[in-house]
Amino acid sequence: MQHIDSTQNKIVKEIKSLSNKKDREKKKLFLLEGERLISEIPSAEDIAYIAVSESYGGNIDKYENVYVLNDKLFSSVCETVSPQGIMAVCRIKDSKPLIADNDKAPLYIVLENVADPGNMGTIIRTADAAGADAVFLSSGCVDIYNPKVIRSTMGSIFHLPIYRNVDTLELMCGLNEKGIMTVVSHLKGFLTPYSVDMTQGCAIFIGNEANGISDELTDEAECLVKIPMPGNAESINAGVAGGILIYEAVRQRMFHNM
Amino acid sequence: MQHIDSTQNKIVKEIKSLSNKKDREKKKLFLLEGERLISEIPSAEDIAYIAVSESYGGNIDKYENVYVLNDKLFSSVCETVSPQGIMAVCRIKDSKPLIADNDKAPLYIVLENVADPGNMGTIIRTADAAGADAVFLSSGCVDIYNPKVIRSTMGSIFHLPIYRNVDTLELMCGLNEKGIMTVVSHLKGFLTPYSVDMTQGCAIFIGNEANGISDELTDEAECLVKIPMPGNAESINAGVAGGILIYEAVRQRMFHNM
Repeated sequence: MQHIDSTQNKIVKEIKSLSNKKDREKKKLFLLEGERLISEIPSAEDIAYIAVSESYGGNIDKYENVYVLNDKLFSSVCETVSPQGIMAVCRIKDSKPLIADNDKAPLYIVLENVADPGNMGTIIRTADAAGADAVFLSSGCVDIYNPKVIRSTMGSIFHLPIYRNVDTLELMCGLNEKGIMTVVSHLKGFLTPYSVDMTQGCAIFIGNEANGISDELTDEAECLVKIPMPGNAESINAGVAGGILIYEAVRQRMFHNM
Repeated sequence: MQHIDSTQNKIVKEIKSLSNKKDREKKKLFLLEGERLISEIPSAEDIAYIAVSESYGGNIDKYENVYVLNDKLFSSVCETVSPQGIMAVCRIKDSKPLIADNDKAPLYIVLENVADPGNMGTIIRTADAAGADAVFLSSGCVDIYNPKVIRSTMGSIFHLPIYRNVDTLELMCGLNEKGIMTVVSHLKGFLTPYSVDMTQGCAIFIGNEANGISDELTDEAECLVKIPMPGNAESINAGVAGGILIYEAVRQRMFHNM
């Protein structure tokens, strides 16, 4: 346990740098704030070190590397407005995307260039609630280690495999080859999600908030679905649209397995 | 058309004051930024006046009361980071909540103490897309005229009746009396949304992000539903949960009417 009082300390500088994507990638580290999120970290090996404020009252005995920052210094390195006095600096671990065989009926969520941190975090949380098998993110998506994404996942980033910087076209071709249904949410879709069989292996593709799914994915997709809009709005928030599609798969699978 | 260059001008002061809920209520005015949102305003009568920046290039001939602010002054009164150079100051009009009879099979969305502006805006947008008949907001909800709510509705506030400061318990009793199904989203619900008939008159109640629906509404509700979560997350974002429930009603009604 080491006390830190200087803004020039290298740990303080490192924590501050992690609000920046480039530095996160260089150091392969990201920041997690608050007890709830830290409690979700699956293994002690994932934690590079812990930082707490001087007045933090929680138990830190279980952690190996702990730095104690004076309260002012701690607040200055926090992203959240009302910090709880504890943060973890965690290791980024990437792995090669894996696709299961269709007979396992996997449910995959694929995000292409989703730009809003809240939308991405929310979709990952929904995918986790739905018991999806993995989430795939194109390289054009907002960084999953962006603090706003992390916060809105509510810990779900630790619950299911999430693959970053995925070549989504290559992925779609691989899924099609395996016979896993590739379902793209598209405003020009002519099927509703309710008329597509999602009880078999199924991958739901959600695109950028403003531009939707790219043409190359649209061309390769097995089916384009459009959420029906009998009312007046022309579109739905991407996080909500993702939730509606993911849960249509959940609903179909519930009744299929009955 | 009047040119304004002074930060002390009363119009400038009024616009600035409208970022504040108390002032919005006192003046019965709210702010709308950008061409897209302004184009959704149903009637010229809803507009108290328009403010544009000096360098705004769009057409303002159709508006009656227009103030031209120098660019710096205009930016200083904007909520959005990259303002488009036009805003409308609109009139707040409240009306008494109306409930249709059950034979009209209305679809209502009721929000109790929803606190996050993005969640509320998103649910209103989803309700609009789904063709819901009205949205009811309890007095504990975030103000619908909060600029962040307005932005995330994407214009939907003008597409369907939205009642503010509603006594949600009184509303629920009224709905129950009329035989309109009151469906509450509740983590302790023992029904899934898929097993509740929402093809008849139906009101979906969504509660506060942290605390859920109040006990008094829970006690009066006809049925408590829980979105199934076969995965690991313990809860879903309120905006997404709202979307899943609203669209289950849409799905059932599509097949019911076929």
